[in-house]
Amino acid sequence: MTPDRIGADAAVKALAGWSKGQGERDEITRTFRFDDFKQAFAFMTAVAMKAEQMDHHPEWFNVYNRVDVVLTTHDADGVTTLDLELAGFMDTLARKLG
Amino acid sequence: MTPDRIGADAAVKALAGWSKGQGERDEITRTFRFDDFKQAFAFMTAVAMKAEQMDHHPEWFNVYNRVDVVLTTHDADGVTTLDLELAGFMDTLARKLG
Amino acid sequence: MTPDRIGADAAVKALAGWSKGQGERDEITRTFRFDDFKQAFAFMTAVAMKAEQMDHHPEWFNVYNRVDVVLTTHDADGVTTLDLELAGFMDTLARKLG
Amino acid sequence: MTPDRIGADAAVKALAGWSKGQGERDEITRTFRFDDFKQAFAFMTAVAMKAEQMDHHPEWFNVYNRVDVVLTTHDADGVTTLDLELAGFMDTLARKLG
Repeated sequence: MTPDRIGADAAVKALAGWSKGQGERDEITRTFRFDDFKQAFAFMTAVAMKAEQMDHHPEWFNVYNRVDVVLTTHDADGVTTLDLELAGFMDTLARKLG
Repeated sequence: MTPDRIGADAAVKALAGWSKGQGERDEITRTFRFDDFKQAFAFMTAVAMKAEQMDHHPEWFNVYNRVDVVLTTHDADGVTTLDLELAGFMDTLARKLG
Repeated sequence: MTPDRIGADAAVKALAGWSKGQGERDEITRTFRFDDFKQAFAFMTAVAMKAEQMDHHPEWFNVYNRVDVVLTTHDADGVTTLDLELAGFMDTLARKLG
Repeated sequence: MTPDRIGADAAVKALAGWSKGQGERDEITRTFRFDDFKQAFAFMTAVAMKAEQMDHHPEWFNVYNRVDVVLTTHDADGVTTLDLELAGFMDTLARKLG
């Protein structure tokens, strides 16, 4: 079942701290910063488990305490409710660790 | 260099939430509980990185959202400043995730 | 949906390296050893992702390069096909890392 | 203590599978591919522990089963023996998981 496509503009309004991606794809992006590498990677580990559970995976870049995330849904050719859910999970966890 | 042995009694007084272990060894123990398995395992991942950095490792048991930890320093045959440091790291992180 | 209960005896025959647990429950157990703590914890991380995906979690104990696992299915009051699947995942990964 | 700068050209010759980075910095890069996301992230976890132990961290990008790594040593303004060591650790582990 393909999830509902909502598009980057609507997703960015529904979330806080996310922006439209700069690529040609319909995608959203956010940079997270943590106290150190340990906390950044603990964040990534919990997100990795959520992603595997959802079978929906981020594109992400990490260096030290920074994690840059890009979310989109390939099957829907744009941002969907899956991306909203994964973004919300990240936001809640980052607030705790922040 | 062997770290200073302080013993379980002194360690338990210096920390909050830790008890003397029930084994024959001089050791301290604490049970951590989290919202779910993801947060328990994210906690374990950050602690694993700290442990590897210190070259000082916990004995720990996990089931779902619970993590039971036992700390002691084999080389010193009892609880040392290394255990205090690792316990303090766990306590700080668990408070954030709690 | 409750998975099929197969029992520890049948599970131990179907697997290699697993034993019946020593507790009162119907359960299976295996000890894994790795080169070092990093590989033990990398193993645990992949298993944690599989467990979360299956919504079926191990009871496990770790110290340094050793991981002791106990598997059973609480809802079925014994060993089921879920435990077989998780055990098989662990065995395949441990062979790679071994 | 600043580690010895060896430069990307020499590093690429000493390693197998690594290339000079395309950025302006003196850096080396390699793309790793695994069977699936679980194995990619287990790889990242072991590498994260090694990185924290060395206090020397990669820049890396992940999507699903792919991990793109860039290594350089900021303090030395180029590739050093630290990068060789971390690259070698990654190569050994990736061979096991591959």
